[in-house]
Amino acid sequence: MTRARDLGIPFVGNPGECNTITDVQGVTVGYATVIEGESARTGVTILHPRGRENHKPVFASTFAFNGNGEMTGAAWVEEGGMLEGPIGITNTHSVGIVRDTIIDWQAKNDAIYQRWSCPVVTETADGWLNDMNGFHVKAEHVWHALDTAKAGMIKEGNVGGGTGMICYEFKGGSGTSSRKLPEKLGGWTVGAFAQTNFGARYQLTIAGVPVGEHLKEHPVWTDGENPYRESGSLIVILATNAPLLPHQLKRIAKRATLGMARTGSLGGNGSGDIFLAFSTTNTNAVRGSINEIAALRALDNDSLNPLFAASVFATEEAIINSMVAAKDMIGHNGFSVIALPHDKLREIMTQYNRA
Amino acid sequence: MTRARDLGIPFVGNPGECNTITDVQGVTVGYATVIEGESARTGVTILHPRGRENHKPVFASTFAFNGNGEMTGAAWVEEGGMLEGPIGITNTHSVGIVRDTIIDWQAKNDAIYQRWSCPVVTETADGWLNDMNGFHVKAEHVWHALDTAKAGMIKEGNVGGGTGMICYEFKGGSGTSSRKLPEKLGGWTVGAFAQTNFGARYQLTIAGVPVGEHLKEHPVWTDGENPYRESGSLIVILATNAPLLPHQLKRIAKRATLGMARTGSLGGNGSGDIFLAFSTTNTNAVRGSINEIAALRALDNDSLNPLFAASVFATEEAIINSMVAAKDMIGHNGFSVIALPHDKLREIMTQYNRA
Amino acid sequence: MTRARDLGIPFVGNPGECNTITDVQGVTVGYATVIEGESARTGVTILHPRGRENHKPVFASTFAFNGNGEMTGAAWVEEGGMLEGPIGITNTHSVGIVRDTIIDWQAKNDAIYQRWSCPVVTETADGWLNDMNGFHVKAEHVWHALDTAKAGMIKEGNVGGGTGMICYEFKGGSGTSSRKLPEKLGGWTVGAFAQTNFGARYQLTIAGVPVGEHLKEHPVWTDGENPYRESGSLIVILATNAPLLPHQLKRIAKRATLGMARTGSLGGNGSGDIFLAFSTTNTNAVRGSINEIAALRALDNDSLNPLFAASVFATEEAIINSMVAAKDMIGHNGFSVIALPHDKLREIMTQYNRA
Amino acid sequence: MTRARDLGIPFVGNPGECNTITDVQGVTVGYATVIEGESARTGVTILHPRGRENHKPVFASTFAFNGNGEMTGAAWVEEGGMLEGPIGITNTHSVGIVRDTIIDWQAKNDAIYQRWSCPVVTETADGWLNDMNGFHVKAEHVWHALDTAKAGMIKEGNVGGGTGMICYEFKGGSGTSSRKLPEKLGGWTVGAFAQTNFGARYQLTIAGVPVGEHLKEHPVWTDGENPYRESGSLIVILATNAPLLPHQLKRIAKRATLGMARTGSLGGNGSGDIFLAFSTTNTNAVRGSINEIAALRALDNDSLNPLFAASVFATEEAIINSMVAAKDMIGHNGFSVIALPHDKLREIMTQYNRA
Repeated sequence: MTRARDLGIPFVGNPGECNTITDVQGVTVGYATVIEGESARTGVTILHPRGRENHKPVFASTFAFNGNGEMTGAAWVEEGGMLEGPIGITNTHSVGIVRDTIIDWQAKNDAIYQRWSCPVVTETADGWLNDMNGFHVKAEHVWHALDTAKAGMIKEGNVGGGTGMICYEFKGGSGTSSRKLPEKLGGWTVGAFAQTNFGARYQLTIAGVPVGEHLKEHPVWTDGENPYRESGSLIVILATNAPLLPHQLKRIAKRATLGMARTGSLGGNGSGDIFLAFSTTNTNAVRGSINEIAALRALDNDSLNPLFAASVFATEEAIINSMVAAKDMIGHNGFSVIALPHDKLREIMTQYNRA
Repeated sequence: MTRARDLGIPFVGNPGECNTITDVQGVTVGYATVIEGESARTGVTILHPRGRENHKPVFASTFAFNGNGEMTGAAWVEEGGMLEGPIGITNTHSVGIVRDTIIDWQAKNDAIYQRWSCPVVTETADGWLNDMNGFHVKAEHVWHALDTAKAGMIKEGNVGGGTGMICYEFKGGSGTSSRKLPEKLGGWTVGAFAQTNFGARYQLTIAGVPVGEHLKEHPVWTDGENPYRESGSLIVILATNAPLLPHQLKRIAKRATLGMARTGSLGGNGSGDIFLAFSTTNTNAVRGSINEIAALRALDNDSLNPLFAASVFATEEAIINSMVAAKDMIGHNGFSVIALPHDKLREIMTQYNRA
Repeated sequence: MTRARDLGIPFVGNPGECNTITDVQGVTVGYATVIEGESARTGVTILHPRGRENHKPVFASTFAFNGNGEMTGAAWVEEGGMLEGPIGITNTHSVGIVRDTIIDWQAKNDAIYQRWSCPVVTETADGWLNDMNGFHVKAEHVWHALDTAKAGMIKEGNVGGGTGMICYEFKGGSGTSSRKLPEKLGGWTVGAFAQTNFGARYQLTIAGVPVGEHLKEHPVWTDGENPYRESGSLIVILATNAPLLPHQLKRIAKRATLGMARTGSLGGNGSGDIFLAFSTTNTNAVRGSINEIAALRALDNDSLNPLFAASVFATEEAIINSMVAAKDMIGHNGFSVIALPHDKLREIMTQYNRA
Repeated sequence: MTRARDLGIPFVGNPGECNTITDVQGVTVGYATVIEGESARTGVTILHPRGRENHKPVFASTFAFNGNGEMTGAAWVEEGGMLEGPIGITNTHSVGIVRDTIIDWQAKNDAIYQRWSCPVVTETADGWLNDMNGFHVKAEHVWHALDTAKAGMIKEGNVGGGTGMICYEFKGGSGTSSRKLPEKLGGWTVGAFAQTNFGARYQLTIAGVPVGEHLKEHPVWTDGENPYRESGSLIVILATNAPLLPHQLKRIAKRATLGMARTGSLGGNGSGDIFLAFSTTNTNAVRGSINEIAALRALDNDSLNPLFAASVFATEEAIINSMVAAKDMIGHNGFSVIALPHDKLREIMTQYNRA
């Protein structure tokens, strides 16, 4: 699997060990990729904030830069400040099956904290390459992703929920990246996971270079009447081991917007750009008996800038990684999308003195 | 079916013809009630904003007073200002099946406006009377509620999504009410639909009378250590034919909070108090070709007070109606809840000079 | 000074020692009352969260139920989770002078935490009894209120920022109340301070009794064409010594809505119903050096119900207290407003078996 | 006055006639620049949405990407959807005097729509070059800016509220730009006005080129321990003649975030990045008698992409314009900041093949 750094893209900041969201201790990721026949090009991705054995809630917050999409469970994350289980990411029309199946998995694993569960499941629309109204994601796929999630290196591109996605009119999908701060700035890790399905070709910008203007072949949106046509969405999950409170995690989630902007997006109407951030510290934050006071830890507002920077840079790189790893795909009704051509990308970067 | 006005409760304001949300021209309501064996006490309710044949979006907005619950689709309602299809209301753990089935119904009825659909499905938890982890709501129930929705008089109490709900430790469920403004104030109608599943007994207040303090038999929450224990949620849908814009509909949705408060609720932690308001005017608000300008109509901010009042009063009465119509129920694991006793209620109202 | 409990009004819950916001250890309140000539009927109120000598920030959050009003500084309270200085409450057109003067006071007291200050100053409109465009609040009044703030018993009614206010068409003003939880529920104190300037007479409800329907003399809004006419606003500040995080304080602030609703308000268009809640614990929450981790304390979501109840009840009583303590007033252009008549109020409460 | 396009910076899109916010018909801008002695380096900027003679409200909405700053009046803009008067922009500690003086000006011009006024006044902190605690902005300055506002070409750089500001450690200030859409996309104009006071040098990016990395001389933040140190804020006002509703204008306001991101900002903790968008169409939107229904016009969600793009590009260029026009400044306590060096900027752009 090729990653953007392998092509010499000059990203800012130092990644963690694997340059993945799983660099944040505890986070595991599972995929079910559903490629069947000529029309099923979809799947589901699961992120366990503390791994699949540890069901303790994490402090969390969400931000919708452009809410043309779905993130179930967001109301309670906002109200209660906590994410109480795994996150699912899939196609728009399979959010329901993923959600109910996560509840079933939680019930059978004795992992429901309140008497009910409102899991976070989010999505992007793969209805071009995938027959989205065929509802190809089944409960068994969700169980598979939940139970095979792992730490360490994870796949990118046409896998899991990202299988059939399109980004800047190239093949998109799943991408990840991380940043590890220097010890003198706390040594914290921030990891990003992106499911990318947004943007018009002409907008694509990599490390500041207007790459899209030079790569006009095989466009997806060919409506010449409206050069601003685009469709799709971006989901970003940011994880960190920095001790942050829910209102601080909202600020982290908002920074995904800046990482998205650095790749050229103008935030199109059709794009559900929805982000969630969580922190794995404060394991004892919740579930005491009444009046039990939790001892918590948190950074000061003035200490957040390095984490903001890490969140922006990791989001930017995760998006580009999703495109670099993706492969050409032909799907539903013969619809086809090409992958970002690595060689031409290198040429263009060189042309702008950015290789 | 007995309604609260039949008991002489002195509500404020004049209801529409049926005193139901369907008094708003176009709105239809469908139920599927799932009572099977000893453990299935649940169901699903569908509201079609313009009836099941008319798929034109309506301007809409949402408000979560206490977000311990789910309302899928809320992100796009907030961002785009529009509700693009039917609303589903069910139990917490069946939100997914209802959501995906609505999409399936939309796809088969050629009723998806964007290339994807993010339906509004909301819930309250019936996990005391109902075996919520048994996932008893099936696609066929959703189709039934979608296809049998009707205008005119509708049922209340133990029906549809409200089948297994508990309100102020009495049997709750589905309730509705409406207000019609005098012609000199515009003649608009506001209708409310409530799925009630919240509150502690001691809080119950009806027309200002502290009814709950006098009705202590058969409590549901018996935890003597914590008199503030309660659980559950309140969903309110407000419909109107008044010409309102999305930001004005948010103000309408917020007023459901005041209607809830008038019944005594203190907004407990466990209660997902989530509200949605829509307006059926402005049928041409959306889906022109690019640059087509829609001609819209709207009231001025200064004209909203009568509609705010109607929203508060209709919400209050819908909640009480849900309890008055409900019947005693025994369900999962033999758990039982009694209905609000009509005779005693009348006595107490008399005692406070409010009958 | 008469208070509502002196009249036998049956409020719920047990107040703290003085039944004031100053029952929360550290909180002090200062007033400057500006009654000059025939047209100046206004003033300014100052609340110091930790007293005027202790400038440490407090965790805080705000909620605008109806944002037809001003609360400067709210953006940073929401973003940073902290209130970094005193709160000012005045008339709508004097917010600026109060704000800049607080900054001047902070600068001279070496009390600016960031290099700049965005103080919280909020308001209601006294432009009926007071010549609001005369800008009668001066810097010296603000300094006086800042420097004379005190703990213990504080005045209510026609004092400070509340001097010229009107509530439910009676004389309103400044009011306060508190609740102290039993030790087994934590023993925490919640205090409310209200500046009341809202509501139509017919709406006024006290302990559930429709008082306003029986007190029709000397109305303020005489526009017979529109029975829903009303004007004004409600500001509520909630203080607590319970260890709460910013996202939990937002939930506390939202509960002021329910306290307001219990007095009959329908949330009129013209009413700026804006609330702020803060917690005096976690004195070390901020201002470490970079990467210094604060040790914090917080309650669990499941422990919040008693605090929610206390917030609702204290808000309700603070509003009624502001009216009970207020006196008749004649002001600008001879405009006059009568106080709530104590004897008639008692009679009505008796009539409804609520004395 | 040199502007960024004069240096050959390759911005995207076509500006209106003057490439200023005043390209939107009706909008006028006034400045008062306060440079006195060695310490006063500040001022105030006024924007009249419909010019200073036309007091009709405009539909509007706000968005705070990072709320470490002040925008008075935002609560009512959000609630009511309308901006009811001029916008003031000044330094952080002069917001109050500007606010109250705008009210005085409104009262004397019979321009208060409700019985009270909550003007929009926003700010950035100039407390390095300016003695911000000296409160050098006086009522006379505000009156001057209000009364001298004009259409057509306006000044940029060290003028008005932007006089003493610092951007990416170069001299910042006031900047503006506009975009005019092709007729086939509606022909609408979007104008941006920015008061720039944010960013760290290393972040500065112009048309994708990492300019800041090559311009390390005369930094402002010299704290070697924390490379992420920065301070300040960004205010952006977006105006358009496109017929947009309040909820659509919120989406426009949010896009200023993307314009900011394109110049390299990572959204630092200390930055109050607060944006407001308004539309000058729908002149009859408000102030009918009760029940009068306004006839309004609005674009469809699907038509917004070209306006989103215009908003992003105009914001980006307004920011860079503020820096290109600014001049070196020495101020309070001898603090000095250099202007962006034009020649070196050209060189760097050439080096990256972007001139």
